[in-house]
Order: sequence, then C-alpha cells, then structure tokens
Amino acid sequence: MTDILKTFASIKKVRTQHGLGSDEVLSCLRQLYETTSSFLSKCARQELTSKVGGKTYFSFLIGKVISRPINETLYNAGTDGIESMFHFLQDRNFEEVSPSEFTAACYNFAVGFCACIDLLKKGDQKTPGTLFEILIGHIYARRLGIEPNRNIDVLNLDMRASLPTDFIYDLGEGKAKFHLPVKTSTRERVVQVWAHQRLLDGVYGTGRFLGTLVCMTETKLDREKLEVVEICLPSQWRLYQMYIAQLTRIYYLDLPDPYRQLGNEFPRIHVRPLGEFFADVDSLIA
Amino acid sequence: MTDILKTFASIKKVRTQHGLGSDEVLSCLRQLYETTSSFLSKCARQELTSKVGGKTYFSFLIGKVISRPINETLYNAGTDGIESMFHFLQDRNFEEVSPSEFTAACYNFAVGFCACIDLLKKGDQKTPGTLFEILIGHIYARRLGIEPNRNIDVLNLDMRASLPTDFIYDLGEGKAKFHLPVKTSTRERVVQVWAHQRLLDGVYGTGRFLGTLVCMTETKLDREKLEVVEICLPSQWRLYQMYIAQLTRIYYLDLPDPYRQLGNEFPRIHVRPLGEFFADVDSLIA
Repeated sequence: MTDILKTFASIKKVRTQHGLGSDEVLSCLRQLYETTSSFLSKCARQELTSKVGGKTYFSFLIGKVISRPINETLYNAGTDGIESMFHFLQDRNFEEVSPSEFTAACYNFAVGFCACIDLLKKGDQKTPGTLFEILIGHIYARRLGIEPNRNIDVLNLDMRASLPTDFIYDLGEGKAKFHLPVKTSTRERVVQVWAHQRLLDGVYGTGRFLGTLVCMTETKLDREKLEVVEICLPSQWRLYQMYIAQLTRIYYLDLPDPYRQLGNEFPRIHVRPLGEFFADVDSLIA
Repeated sequence: MTDILKTFASIKKVRTQHGLGSDEVLSCLRQLYETTSSFLSKCARQELTSKVGGKTYFSFLIGKVISRPINETLYNAGTDGIESMFHFLQDRNFEEVSPSEFTAACYNFAVGFCACIDLLKKGDQKTPGTLFEILIGHIYARRLGIEPNRNIDVLNLDMRASLPTDFIYDLGEGKAKFHLPVKTSTRERVVQVWAHQRLLDGVYGTGRFLGTLVCMTETKLDREKLEVVEICLPSQWRLYQMYIAQLTRIYYLDLPDPYRQLGNEFPRIHVRPLGEFFADVDSLIA
C-alpha cells in the first residue's frame, strides 16, 4: 500500500517540477504501473453478474473488500499492450498506435490503479480521479507537445476575472485550443462540462476551443447483489449538445454502447474509444 | 433520533399522498420542528471562530460529534418567529410577512434539522438536502397555490425526450413559470443551475421560465481549528450570468455579503434573503 501511495505522491511532485508532459512524469507512471500490477496479481478475483450487453465484469478482492467493476476482456487485452503504450508515449511515436490496443492498455493501467485505491483506501474517490486526470493530461501533453493551463484570464470591458477550468492546451495564435475535462464517470454532473464549454464559447468566441471530454466508464456495482449496470442518459446528452454547447469529441476507455450510438444519428455526438484520439487529432488541428 | 427520522419519513409519504403544498405536509413540518427543537435544546453549544465579517457562529455538540456551523444571531431571531412562519403558511397570509423574520424562522428550522442529522447520522448529506428541498418546495407551493412538476416533456421535430429538472411551477397558459433549484450550499456545482436554466431557455424560449435558486448558506467549518469560513465565487457567478443564462433571483437563508453585493453593480444579479420572495413574487408574476 505505502509503495502505491508513495509513487502516486511522487508523480504529483515531479509534475510540478518538470511539467505534466515530461519524461519524468512518464517514468513515474511506469513505476506506478509496476507497483499496482504486482499488487493486483496477488488479489483474488470475484466474478460479477453483468447487466451490460456484451461485456463481462469482475472485481478484485481482499477479504470482504471489493474493488470497482472491471471490464474483463478490455483489462486482459490491456495487459499485453502496456509495454507498447509506454513506448509510444516515450518515443512520441503516435502514428503506429493501434487505437483498440492503446485504449485497452490505458484502461488496464487506470482501472487497475483505481482498484488498488478501492481496496486500500475505502471511500476515497479523489485519488483515483486525480491519477486519471494526470494520465490523460499527460497523454495529451505528449501528443500535442505542449503543457496545459488550468486558469485563463477574462478581460471584458471594465471587468477582469480569472476562470478556473479543466485542462486547456493552446497550440498558439490562430491555432486550435483544446478544452479537456477528465472524469472517471459522469452521471448527473456531466452538464458541467457542456456549461464550461458554453462559457469558453461565450467569452472567447464559438469555435475557438475544441471540447474533448475523456471518461473512464459509466458502470456501477451493486455491492449486495454483485451486479454491474451501466448508467447512460443519451437523450439528455443530445439536449445538452443542442442547447448548451457543442463538444467536439467524447472519448471513453470502457465505451458504453448507448453513447457510441450517438454518432449514428443527427445531431451527431462523436463518442469514441480514447485510442482514436491519435487518428482524430490531425484532422482536428489541421 | 428515531422520532426525528420517523417524522421525516412520514413527510415523504404524506407528500406523495397529498401533494407538496398540502396542509398535511405543513402539519408534518410543524411536528418535525417540535421534535428537532426539543432534541437540540438538550445539546451543548460549541462557540466557533468566525472568519466571516459581522457574523458569529456556533455548533451543536454531543460528546465529540459536532454539527455544521450555525449563524447565532439568525438562529436566535428565528426561534421567536417560528410560530408566525407556520401561521403565515397555514393561512396563506403572505402580505403581512416580515421578510427578515420569515428568513430567520426558516433558517432556524432548516439548519436545526441539518444539525440533528449531523449529530445523529454522521456523513449523511442526502437527508438534510431532501428536507430543505421539501421545505422550500412547500413554501413556493403554498404561495403560488400550485403543485410543482419534476419532469417536462421535450417535443422537438423528430425527437421526444423527458427532461428531469428541479421543481417547476407552471402558473398556466400565458403566465409565469418558475424554475426552482434548491441547494443547501453551492460551491463548484452551482454552474449546473445556470446550465439547466439555459436548457429551459433553449427548449422553450428565453423568458418563459423565471429561474430562482434557493440556498441555505455557504459556510464551511474547519473541524480541527473550529473556524468558520464562507466560500463565495462572485466573479464566476457574474460570468455564468453573462454567458450561460440569466437567473431572475437567488435567495439565501444565511446570505453571504459578497453575493448580496452582486445586486449593486452591472450586470446585476439579485441575491436576497428568502423572506423577500413574498414581496418580489407579485411583481415577478404580474
């Protein structure tokens, strides 16, 4: 336990010193993966009843303490892809990434860390969220070659304010700017993401910021019945997209099918596995 | 303890049977007040260090368990006004309400119930939130003479969806409709309120729904130092009001001064003590 939390604490320090996209953060992430995967290899697995079509889930287990649900196929596929993921990030060699392999590897790492925290620090939601934010923020920073900001100034006639936001990646004058909110899951809080996008559109002009939300999963575990459900509100998302603001992409690690379907109907919302970011990004910033 | 939770449970049942604005809910609320105030009269009080200008706070105490902070002046003033508050609600006689007396009485009741739950069910945030929602929803229902809805249909060309919302009071064809979100405190979640208002404006047309947010307080207690602070983000509220949607009123029980000031500068946001709702409402629905 102390190893995992110590490594996690060192990432936060290294990030402040060297930047979120630095080689130093990458090497801490790799170290964290080694610690968590070795910890989890000693844990028992509990099969779960999946109410999610086409997906099977299990939880890691220590005594009676049970982790969040884990997509079995995705997790197992991810184990094989971890080394490639770290290599792609290390060499910034993103052309050869296989989207499905990268998504699975990223899922394996992120959900594995979350499971460790579930088992070791019951009720702690903040640590998993912070690590996921660091991981996704790091991937964007490596791919785009720039560091994110978390505050932007608003200058507007006689008022001046500082707007705290999710990650902002600014590619420079006349170039694309990314607005990157990161959530382990969304539920009813997701309307915040559209509201922040609306604020950026209003303050700086529509089309200046490309909103790309990144989420891990929408699964929920009933700990009594050991049943996994997926909580999705696709018709509400469509209303947000029509009436509040437009998100350019939404990426998932464990992509819920009801959200994937939103890409098939007008008005389209493009919800895809995270690995497709690398194929999308060139056309988005072109 | 069981008395308080039993009475609370009966309110929820009575509300479903008779309606939120019914005499039956009112009489349950009165009974709940008696139970909570008798419970609190036996609790010790802990003085707190107030970092909020011009306000003093204390907490109720049982052993080492401490309640949320309570505005002393407002709470004490409220004790005297409780009977009048129940009479005004009983007789729907709102012309004679003194805004400051009503606000204090309402605060006394609501924060008193929250304090009981803090002491009896540590970590339970949901029960205080639900009671506060019932209380405020009841007051609106008594004053407006109608029951609220919590779902509205969206019919839009080829799509049909049901939009879950906060309370909606619809005074009828061609008349005002109130959008009433209720929060014990707001913090960073408050952007949701503006986003929902924006959605209503977009779906039904701007000006159709009068957004009136009701909050209890913005205080936060440091349980180690026994210090009370007030967390306010007035410049962010101004951005939300300028760029997301327009709320017509925001009412507080324990009104933070930085928010009250928002009424003095353009673009104005009218943030007032709850009791002023009764004076405001006639001009709002005129």
